[in-house]
Amino acid sequence: MNITEKILAKASGKTEVSPDDIINANVDLAMSHDGTSPPTIKVFEKIADKVWDPEKIVLVFDHNVPANTMGSAEFQQVVREFGKKQKIPNMYIQGEGICHQVLPEKGHVKPSTVIVGADSHTCTYGAFGAFSTGLGATDLAMVYATGQNWFKVPSSLKINVNGTLQKNVYSKDLILNIIKTLGAYGATYKSLEFHGDTIDNLSVDARMTMTNMAIECGAKNGIMVPNKQTEEYLSQRGVTDYTITKPDVDAEYEKEYDFDVNDLQPQIACPHNVDNVKDVDQVEGTHIDQAVLGSCTNGRYEDLEQAANILENHKVHEDVQLLVFPASRNIYEKAIETGIIQTLIKANAIICNPGCGPCLGAHMGVMTEDMTCISTTNRNFLGRMGSPKSYVYLSNPAVVAASAITGEITNPLNI
Amino acid sequence: MNITEKILAKASGKTEVSPDDIINANVDLAMSHDGTSPPTIKVFEKIADKVWDPEKIVLVFDHNVPANTMGSAEFQQVVREFGKKQKIPNMYIQGEGICHQVLPEKGHVKPSTVIVGADSHTCTYGAFGAFSTGLGATDLAMVYATGQNWFKVPSSLKINVNGTLQKNVYSKDLILNIIKTLGAYGATYKSLEFHGDTIDNLSVDARMTMTNMAIECGAKNGIMVPNKQTEEYLSQRGVTDYTITKPDVDAEYEKEYDFDVNDLQPQIACPHNVDNVKDVDQVEGTHIDQAVLGSCTNGRYEDLEQAANILENHKVHEDVQLLVFPASRNIYEKAIETGIIQTLIKANAIICNPGCGPCLGAHMGVMTEDMTCISTTNRNFLGRMGSPKSYVYLSNPAVVAASAITGEITNPLNI
Repeated sequence: MNITEKILAKASGKTEVSPDDIINANVDLAMSHDGTSPPTIKVFEKIADKVWDPEKIVLVFDHNVPANTMGSAEFQQVVREFGKKQKIPNMYIQGEGICHQVLPEKGHVKPSTVIVGADSHTCTYGAFGAFSTGLGATDLAMVYATGQNWFKVPSSLKINVNGTLQKNVYSKDLILNIIKTLGAYGATYKSLEFHGDTIDNLSVDARMTMTNMAIECGAKNGIMVPNKQTEEYLSQRGVTDYTITKPDVDAEYEKEYDFDVNDLQPQIACPHNVDNVKDVDQVEGTHIDQAVLGSCTNGRYEDLEQAANILENHKVHEDVQLLVFPASRNIYEKAIETGIIQTLIKANAIICNPGCGPCLGAHMGVMTEDMTCISTTNRNFLGRMGSPKSYVYLSNPAVVAASAITGEITNPLNI
Repeated sequence: MNITEKILAKASGKTEVSPDDIINANVDLAMSHDGTSPPTIKVFEKIADKVWDPEKIVLVFDHNVPANTMGSAEFQQVVREFGKKQKIPNMYIQGEGICHQVLPEKGHVKPSTVIVGADSHTCTYGAFGAFSTGLGATDLAMVYATGQNWFKVPSSLKINVNGTLQKNVYSKDLILNIIKTLGAYGATYKSLEFHGDTIDNLSVDARMTMTNMAIECGAKNGIMVPNKQTEEYLSQRGVTDYTITKPDVDAEYEKEYDFDVNDLQPQIACPHNVDNVKDVDQVEGTHIDQAVLGSCTNGRYEDLEQAANILENHKVHEDVQLLVFPASRNIYEKAIETGIIQTLIKANAIICNPGCGPCLGAHMGVMTEDMTCISTTNRNFLGRMGSPKSYVYLSNPAVVAASAITGEITNPLNI
């Protein structure tokens, strides 16, 4: 079996599962945020009085923090009351950061477990060798009530990535290039299993960027074998009681893809689809009004550092607002300790509170007609950041930083 | 003549003016922000092609930064285009902070000048001995076109403040106590001229808090003779070419008030009026859901420092969100240099980008029904921060910090 099959077999008490099997799996961790908790709670309260295990549920406020409308404040109230009533000990509701960053940071994520969350980027935890995927609020309510969820076992695509990354090329470029190759619907309900030297050598931050975007080609999940850095990360957070799942030698995959990334340039997903990916040189010179550094995709320490390295001793172009959203309070704090935030401030960046920020066009960095943004986030759908007549380009943090300086999409090599 | 009369006489080319005189004054500096610039520009474009003096106009984005809706993004676009077309050199549109902080910080504010702005708290600059007041957008459009504005000379109230402030009592408590005495409409279209030992000894930050809130008892302006600290502040910002205006020995005032503040407690403005002021001990124990530290009233360095001193080695109560909005990027940067932001982060505060933030209930920290906030801001009107069924209490930064720790309104002496 491959990694996903092995985890799902164990979670459903079977010795073996195959693609398309319908199984009922025990869930190890379930999560919802300020946007998705209220509908989950609404359904939950129709079917149960008590959650199956308060210790296994995590509630996070990240989408609209601080509350931007009376409605979002009311949503937060509903979640607070539910958490208290159900005695859920792990509530991150004081601006701790984005759920997908906070959960691993606080030691909730374990390799080889089954994690579900009412957010499409729940696939992020695959970086830690967990099977993790997004659910709708109704399904999650059932999990909150029973601790179980049915799955169709996905077939898996083996993604081999080998080669050494050039300067200013990062894991964001790898995953954008993979999505370009597979297509936005190319892995629908499949598992992406990442392998290869390049993946083995990636930092935890960089790995999370890749599994985070598995959903952007439709994948049910993205998964990797934890490397040494991942084990260190877990150990630093007191997570030691786990097993690591590797694929069997004879594991089966629906298809195998080989990526040689030695010559890869920074990749840009152009409007309005994540698979509309071009080399940075093809779109260099595109005027931008806004630059966004952050999100569950690229708001981690290394991402801020990569941007700060480019922005040091430079200023953001006078026509651009550079919005920085650290993915968590911990990251923000560390980036102050090391002077990265100070570098960004000196460059005239706008440092915002940790959270999802402008990624979803909700309440910060909303764009009007004819505005263009270069962003480290994960989606450039029509109207994602505001007006359906605005434009979002997705890139790595170095390209965002370089573009913020010049006011147009720029290869960082040219700064 | 008193200070305001002397400044207005000079600005209108007269040797003497008296209360109720209608004069036409030359304006030295005019300002509008992201909320008020677009309506100002709309009127301006009906009456003129070119602004009277681009050097004397300052445009700031502070009310909705980053843009929270397509509408506010469009407002920003309108302002950018106007600024470029009119060649206005002083545009602070990249998150520099709140207009009333940015203007003095960047050296635009001079004693004895006439300053107008399309924002009611434009009276803040009276801390520097300037006559400054808020105008509506239509009036400001005329200023942008002509550099002049008509005024009825206000009669003046002489406010004498003497005594030494107790621990945890600050200038916010002075001004709240003055507003309590005068009433919310007690100084309508009058000038508040502050005098006395206490005023003489206040820092610039503390002085700005007082003149800032002059409008909250209806005053046309609040004004003080610059003290030594103010002169140093100006000198550090390259402002050296100015005169200081003092009242004549025989200056006339409509009325004189004497405040002995030796025994003053922290003051709390209770819902829903700024003059509904009580001693902190009278409202101690009131449950809060949100605490706000920031605004043009109390978002300055000293304010953050006062709060950090209370919050050091404490955590924000688990049911409370503490929202911190430094008044400017400079303040934010300085507060990182000295470790104040780090102290606030360790206490689990949510550090937001410099700007007006939740003060006006626009897009951050909006409250739903039954929520209560303690805030260093300047207005607690019905619905000011969201629902008309929510409650805002105004206080100094130390009380906000103490209350954030306990989850109820708290005298900092009890922490």
